[in-house]
Amino acid sequence: MNYKKLLRIFGKIMILEGILMVPSLIISMIYKEGLINILAFLLPIIGLVGIGFLLQLLKPKRNALYQKEGFALVALTWFILALFGAVPFVINGDIPNYIDAFFETASGFTTTGASIITDITKISHSSLFWRSFTHWIGGMGILVFILIFIPESDEGSSLHLLKAESAGPQVGKLATKMRVTSRILYLMYLGLTIITFILLLFAKPIPGYESEHVFFSMVTVFGCAGTGGFSIIPGSLELMSPYAQYVVATSLLLFGINFSLYYLIILGKIKEVLKSDELKTYGAILLASVGLIFISLITKAGDLVRVYSTEEAFRHAYFQVASIMTTAGFSSTDFNLWPNIAKMVLIILMFTGAMAGSTAGGLKVSRIVIAIKGTIRNLRKLINPRYVPKTKFDDKPLEESVINDVFAYFTLYFFALIIVILILSFDPINGTMIEITSENGVGTYVVEHGFTSNFTAALSCFSNIGPGLEAVGPYSSFAGYSDFSTLILGFAMILGRLEILPVLILFSPRTWKRR
Amino acid sequence: MNYKKLLRIFGKIMILEGILMVPSLIISMIYKEGLINILAFLLPIIGLVGIGFLLQLLKPKRNALYQKEGFALVALTWFILALFGAVPFVINGDIPNYIDAFFETASGFTTTGASIITDITKISHSSLFWRSFTHWIGGMGILVFILIFIPESDEGSSLHLLKAESAGPQVGKLATKMRVTSRILYLMYLGLTIITFILLLFAKPIPGYESEHVFFSMVTVFGCAGTGGFSIIPGSLELMSPYAQYVVATSLLLFGINFSLYYLIILGKIKEVLKSDELKTYGAILLASVGLIFISLITKAGDLVRVYSTEEAFRHAYFQVASIMTTAGFSSTDFNLWPNIAKMVLIILMFTGAMAGSTAGGLKVSRIVIAIKGTIRNLRKLINPRYVPKTKFDDKPLEESVINDVFAYFTLYFFALIIVILILSFDPINGTMIEITSENGVGTYVVEHGFTSNFTAALSCFSNIGPGLEAVGPYSSFAGYSDFSTLILGFAMILGRLEILPVLILFSPRTWKRR
Repeated sequence: MNYKKLLRIFGKIMILEGILMVPSLIISMIYKEGLINILAFLLPIIGLVGIGFLLQLLKPKRNALYQKEGFALVALTWFILALFGAVPFVINGDIPNYIDAFFETASGFTTTGASIITDITKISHSSLFWRSFTHWIGGMGILVFILIFIPESDEGSSLHLLKAESAGPQVGKLATKMRVTSRILYLMYLGLTIITFILLLFAKPIPGYESEHVFFSMVTVFGCAGTGGFSIIPGSLELMSPYAQYVVATSLLLFGINFSLYYLIILGKIKEVLKSDELKTYGAILLASVGLIFISLITKAGDLVRVYSTEEAFRHAYFQVASIMTTAGFSSTDFNLWPNIAKMVLIILMFTGAMAGSTAGGLKVSRIVIAIKGTIRNLRKLINPRYVPKTKFDDKPLEESVINDVFAYFTLYFFALIIVILILSFDPINGTMIEITSENGVGTYVVEHGFTSNFTAALSCFSNIGPGLEAVGPYSSFAGYSDFSTLILGFAMILGRLEILPVLILFSPRTWKRR
Repeated sequence: MNYKKLLRIFGKIMILEGILMVPSLIISMIYKEGLINILAFLLPIIGLVGIGFLLQLLKPKRNALYQKEGFALVALTWFILALFGAVPFVINGDIPNYIDAFFETASGFTTTGASIITDITKISHSSLFWRSFTHWIGGMGILVFILIFIPESDEGSSLHLLKAESAGPQVGKLATKMRVTSRILYLMYLGLTIITFILLLFAKPIPGYESEHVFFSMVTVFGCAGTGGFSIIPGSLELMSPYAQYVVATSLLLFGINFSLYYLIILGKIKEVLKSDELKTYGAILLASVGLIFISLITKAGDLVRVYSTEEAFRHAYFQVASIMTTAGFSSTDFNLWPNIAKMVLIILMFTGAMAGSTAGGLKVSRIVIAIKGTIRNLRKLINPRYVPKTKFDDKPLEESVINDVFAYFTLYFFALIIVILILSFDPINGTMIEITSENGVGTYVVEHGFTSNFTAALSCFSNIGPGLEAVGPYSSFAGYSDFSTLILGFAMILGRLEILPVLILFSPRTWKRR
């Protein structure tokens, strides 16, 4: 392990994080939040930049990074970002418990959007800004950002970084030069962000928040771009105008598309875009999910606590599907009260996520497509042992190793998910038991933080979504969990964001061998 | 598809099923249950044997079976067994709805043990016997049974059968000749059954059931051998003496062991047995699960509706782990009321199941071991791209293709499970919603048949266990579900029992091509 080189890079990342805190410092001064709020950002900025520059004094003997070092670097970077990014919340007292603050910051950078805060109205503007800004930073992957600053000569090691960072199997073929690729990606990201921001500015301000329309639009856009999901008022985006909800949902869906497809559109290669199996499946899942939920909301409306009009049913179906599928996690209504089938569709979307090469989390649509194609191939081989597979993806032959990697990833994903749920089940909060009697007259026992809560909490953090169901539903927070569970969930977010393996590498003694 | 040959074999299976109903007919006469109960078995026996013999008149042009035909044969056989086996319940009125009767019979043959019956005390002895007897038949795989009667010349096709039927990756290496293998397996199965039966006869009879001690012991043994789980009194095996509960749990654990290991013991190859990675992992999972649940029951006893003594806590932990891990599904207590961590351990055991080549369902311990070893191998390859994997299983090199098959199976398993849960979520019973308020003062909405019920119902049927949690807990039944859901769950049992692919083959048009 090339420790000196790694520490040097960590130094650069710390300097960068310090610089990224400056806008929050400015917000703090604009809103005249007082000394403690200003210091909450000023001290970490000084500390991060100072330590960062000190680390630049290290002179590594070897400049290149091995693959394992690349992976370890990426994994550790996310932990460093979350660990230092949590400090302002503790200093200004918005989130006094450091573990809670770590959870919130990890949730921000990984673009999860799960919150530990129970009363959002008490949080300072600077904290709210910083929280949502981490979505925007994390969305594109902080390391793609850094790539821009890495000198040309390090190209080889950068490749390892992007490989570990990339959301899915399909990144890095836009342009031959890694730095060019990252700049193009970043420009598109910025462009889409600005368009969404302008569209949101046109929306009717939320009643009671008229004076903060620009601020609110800005933090919402950060959540859209990163497919995060932090909101700054109670009830997420429920109070937003229908127009604004349509804008957010559509923006999310656009950020959930593989960015390389936009690049192809810029190049005028529309035909190639239309050939994309992943895009077609993404559209099909979207249509089917919105349709199913819309019908269930319309027909079951009588049973629901809230009754929707047809437009409302469609809007909430569209909004929640977009929000969950892109793993943002904004909510326009309390979907915890929806019929089972609607909730089950949302749970499935929590697994699938959006497209690879986008800012979304989850398993990714491309993996789903490859797994289904691989299964059909296996079935054919079983029917006819002499069958020679000619499975295709995007009109190109699908390699055996790609299919096997996807199957291996699915297995690992479910294993990791089950382990997180198991750990959450230890939480003392699980003890409370309540007897209820339904109309059917059958006595049922319900555990407060039951299996559904723990399952969706783990899945939601792991797929970087935000809310789950029941005790961690869209109108609740993760505050009920113990410090230990909170820590595990924060860890699960980073695990999910980096697609597990890079983080697991940190636990292998082989990684840390000095060589 | 060689239809004539297939129909001929189905004829043989029908004759066999008819013969297998004779003991139930005798029970019906011994207990003097009246004409309708006698006819309930007599008519199907006559029908099955009659049609069976008629089908023997078909003269197939080709005698051999292709692989796809072997798989289709196995899958269809299970459907045929369940469809005809359901008839007695409908005739004698014990289960008047045919779909419910199909569910119960599929549950019997697949050794699931999930029941649709709400009041077991009203069921006739002959029905109770038939229900549990299907466990015993299904346990070893009806086709291993049939193998004994298939003439030597068909050896080639028999291999396909066992391949589709085999519970896991490790069957069929006991002896070179398939028929010899099946006879040895069957003798061991019979031997273990008789030993358990004798041990149960020594137990103190259940209060109120003294006169039926032999009958009760017999049907319980059928459930043990097949790792089924049907019981004939309310509350499963709760009222059994502690001694009998220990006997049942230990018997289940023995039936959950790969039968080829017993064969090795008979041959005196103890060293080879001790080398078995699967056996070691099976033991480790058992110990860890019993330990975790025992501790959770002891420490959380105050919160529980039922308070256990130390012996009770250990016994119920041991019994439920054995029962769920071997996918039997008997219960010695209402584990629905256990703390979350204990329930979560049971859910994980519902996934793992017991050993391959045993009578249990689930993913199988060997697959878990292979998946973990495969993941570690992938991790090593990531750390060092030049790493040459030398993964071993039972001291033999683990082939790449075996690992990939396991990953593919896991993926398919989770896909199928999620689809079944999705279908269950459509059930109208899901509508009921109840508001509850806990000590924490937070209002929580709970759906009667919520996600946990549907999730565990699907998992339980799919892994051939029996009970789930909440609405389908050990003290409830599956009666709440609609006919459509019941049908799907019955289908899921057969899907799980045959490890998915053989059943999926039935849905491919390629399978039905005449050739």
